[in-house]
Amino acid sequence: MAKKNAFYAQSGGVTAVINASACGVIETARQHKNKIGKVYAGRNGIIGALTEDLIDTSKETAKNIAALRHTPGGAFGSCRYKLKGIEENRAQYERLIDVFKAHDIGYFFYNGGGDSQDTSHKVSQIADELGYPITCVGIPKTVDNDLPITDNCPGFGSVAKYVAVSTREAAYDVASMSKTSTKVFVMEVMGRHAGWIAASSGLAVEQEGDAPHIILFPEIAFDKDKFLKKVNNTIKKYDYCVIVVSEGVRYKDGRFLSDSGTTDAFGHAQLGGVAPLLANMIKDESGHKFHWAVADYLQRSARHIASKTDVEQAYALGKAAVEMALKGKNAVMPTIVRKSNKPYRWKIGEAALADVANVEKMMPKNFITRDGFGITDSCREYLAPLIKGEDYPPFKNGLPQYARMKNIAVKKKLKAKFDI
Amino acid sequence: MAKKNAFYAQSGGVTAVINASACGVIETARQHKNKIGKVYAGRNGIIGALTEDLIDTSKETAKNIAALRHTPGGAFGSCRYKLKGIEENRAQYERLIDVFKAHDIGYFFYNGGGDSQDTSHKVSQIADELGYPITCVGIPKTVDNDLPITDNCPGFGSVAKYVAVSTREAAYDVASMSKTSTKVFVMEVMGRHAGWIAASSGLAVEQEGDAPHIILFPEIAFDKDKFLKKVNNTIKKYDYCVIVVSEGVRYKDGRFLSDSGTTDAFGHAQLGGVAPLLANMIKDESGHKFHWAVADYLQRSARHIASKTDVEQAYALGKAAVEMALKGKNAVMPTIVRKSNKPYRWKIGEAALADVANVEKMMPKNFITRDGFGITDSCREYLAPLIKGEDYPPFKNGLPQYARMKNIAVKKKLKAKFDI
Repeated sequence: MAKKNAFYAQSGGVTAVINASACGVIETARQHKNKIGKVYAGRNGIIGALTEDLIDTSKETAKNIAALRHTPGGAFGSCRYKLKGIEENRAQYERLIDVFKAHDIGYFFYNGGGDSQDTSHKVSQIADELGYPITCVGIPKTVDNDLPITDNCPGFGSVAKYVAVSTREAAYDVASMSKTSTKVFVMEVMGRHAGWIAASSGLAVEQEGDAPHIILFPEIAFDKDKFLKKVNNTIKKYDYCVIVVSEGVRYKDGRFLSDSGTTDAFGHAQLGGVAPLLANMIKDESGHKFHWAVADYLQRSARHIASKTDVEQAYALGKAAVEMALKGKNAVMPTIVRKSNKPYRWKIGEAALADVANVEKMMPKNFITRDGFGITDSCREYLAPLIKGEDYPPFKNGLPQYARMKNIAVKKKLKAKFDI
Repeated sequence: MAKKNAFYAQSGGVTAVINASACGVIETARQHKNKIGKVYAGRNGIIGALTEDLIDTSKETAKNIAALRHTPGGAFGSCRYKLKGIEENRAQYERLIDVFKAHDIGYFFYNGGGDSQDTSHKVSQIADELGYPITCVGIPKTVDNDLPITDNCPGFGSVAKYVAVSTREAAYDVASMSKTSTKVFVMEVMGRHAGWIAASSGLAVEQEGDAPHIILFPEIAFDKDKFLKKVNNTIKKYDYCVIVVSEGVRYKDGRFLSDSGTTDAFGHAQLGGVAPLLANMIKDESGHKFHWAVADYLQRSARHIASKTDVEQAYALGKAAVEMALKGKNAVMPTIVRKSNKPYRWKIGEAALADVANVEKMMPKNFITRDGFGITDSCREYLAPLIKGEDYPPFKNGLPQYARMKNIAVKKKLKAKFDI
C-alpha cells in the first residue's frame, strides 16, 4: 500500500490506560513514516470523523505523546455514540469514507469496547463495498472486562487494582473503629452487567477474616434475608463487615436494587446509589453504624495507582494494532493471550472483528463461591496477575503531571457539513 | 524519674498516618530503655486503659513496628469515646490512675484531635491531684486540620493529596466525555465544620479552566441560584463542570444540605450524601448528565497516595512527644511550626494542652475567593507544601503490604472490672 494517513479514535467510557494505547499507536506509526503519514485523531471519537473534526497528532511533541502513557482519560475526547447499522443509516458510513478519502486516510484504528469493535467491523465492510479500501483494526478497551476472545481488556486491570487497594485500606480504617463506631462499610463499584470489578476486591483477602467479607455480583440475584444474615454473622465473628457491591446488583425479578423506589426531597426517583441503600437496609435490621462510599469515576481514572501489567498491555495492543495494519491485516483486533499463570506470561493474539462485535463475556460460574458472596481460587488465579506491578506517573508539587495536548485541528477539506 | 512504662493510645477517627506517629513513639521509646520500660497501647484507645485491656507492644518485632510507618488505620484500635469532665465522672479518671499504677505507667501519650487533647489535659490534672505523677503528652492527629496553634495536623496532608489527585484524575475523565455524555461531576469530601479538605481540591488547578471549577465550603452558606448560575456558566465556557463539595455544606439557616428531606423507599430520612443531591439539583435545572462520587473512608485511609510531608511530620511528632516526656515536660503537645514556604521548612514546636483543648481552627476568611467557590493564592501557599512528596508503601502481588500486629494483651492485675 502507498503511504497513507491513519485515523485513530477513542470510544465509550475512558480508562486510566486508554491513552497508553494511543501512545502505542502514535509512537509505532511514527516509526513507520515510509508507510504511515500522519496520525489524525478524531476529536471526541467517531464524531470527529463524521464532522471532519480531526486532530493532527503530528503537531504534538514526542515528549507529549510519551506522556500519554501515564495520562488518564481520553486525550482526544471520547464519545458515547453508536453508529447505526449500515442499512439504517448508510449516509453515516458514506460520510466516514468521504472524510477518509479527503484526508488520504488508509488506516482506521478504533479504541473501544464491544460496540466500537462492531463499528470497526462495519467500516471495513462498507469501505470494501464503496471501493475505498481502508485497513480497519480495533483496539480493545473497557473497564468492564467484557470483551470476548481476549483474555482480559486494558483498563480493567487498573480499576481492579484501585478497587482491591481501596478495599484493603478502608478495611484497615473500619477495623480500627468498630469497637465504638462504624461496623459496616459498603463500597459501590462499577459493573452494570458483569461482576468483574466487584470480584477484584476479593484480591484484598490474604487471610481468613480479611475484608471484603461480602461481595455482591450482578450475576447473583440479591437475597435480602441471606445477605443480612451474612452481615450479622460477619460482625459477630470479626466485629465489623466490609461489603463491596456492584452497581448492577438486581433482585430476582430483574429490578436493579438502585431502582427500588428511592425518592429525594422533590419526589424524584433514584437519588443515591446502591451503597447507601444497602447501608440503610443493614441499619434498619441491626442498628449498626455504617459508612459508605461510591467510587464512581475515581476508580477508572485513578492513573496514580494503575496496574503496570495493564499499562504495558494497553501500550502493546496499540503498537500491535499498527503492526497488524502494516502487515495488511484487516477487520481484526489484537488480543491478550495468557500463556501461563505462574509466572504470569502473555503474548499478543489476534481476533476477527466479526467474532468480537457485540459479544459480552460474563464471569464464569466457577469464579463465584457457592454462597454467592465471594470469589473462588480460580477467579483469584485469573485476576491476580492483572493488578501486578505499579507504574506511577511523574509527580510535581505533590500532584501527578498529566499530558496537556495541543489538539490542533486539521484544516477541513469538505464543503458539506454533517449533523450529528 | 525512675524507669517507668508508657501508655499510648489512638483516639477518634483514624488517618493514613496516625500509625506513623505510633511508630515514632514506639521506636523512640525503644531507644531509651533506661528511662522507658515497655510501651503499652490501649486496645481501642482510651477504652483499653479503662478496661485494663493493654497491648504489649514489646512483643512486636522491630520490623512490624517499622511497618506502622506505612500502614493506614489505627493499629491498636481507636475509639469515639469522650471522657466526661472530672467533676461529672471522677470514677473514670480514678480508674485510669489505678490502671496506670498497677502497670507502673509513668508516661501517657494520647494521639488524637481536640477532644483527646482535652482528655490528656484532664489526666495530667487528676494525676497531680491524686498524687500519682504521670507525664502527659498529646500527639496531634486529625484529617480535619482543625487543631489550633500547630500549623497543620498530621493526617490532613494525605487526605488533601488524595482529594487533589482524585479531582485532577476525575476531571481528565469528565473532560473526555463531555461532548456526548457526562458534563457534571460532583465529588463529596469530608469536613463537617471546616472546609480544609474541600479546599485542598483547589490545588489541582494549575491553569485557567482546570478543575475543580466550583468548591463548596461549610463556611459559606449555600445559595442555590448563585450555584446553578455558576455551574451553567462553567459548562458554557468549558463544556463540563467539576464540583467538590464538603459534606458539611449548609443553607443560610444552618440546615445541612444533606439533611434536606431526602427519603428512601422505607420513608426514612437521609439516604444519600450531598453529592447526589447537588447532582440531581443540577439535572433538574438544566438536564445535564451527571456522575457523582462519595470518597468517604477511602480518602482518609488512602495510604498508597499519602503525602511524604505528612508521613514525616506524623512520625516526627510521635518522636518529639517521647523526647518531650523524657525532658520532663508535662501537659504539652508537640506542634508543627512553619518556618518558610519556599522552600517549605518546618520544625517541631510546643503547645500547652490547656491551650489546645476544645479549640477549633477554622479556615481564615482570606483563604476563600470572594465568590465563595474557590481558594485564594494565600490558601494555595498554605496548602501546597502539605501534599508534597510521595511515600509509597511496599507492594507485593500488586497490593500494598500493611502491618499485621499481634496485639498481645498484657496480663491484667486489677480485680475490679470497669464498665464502659
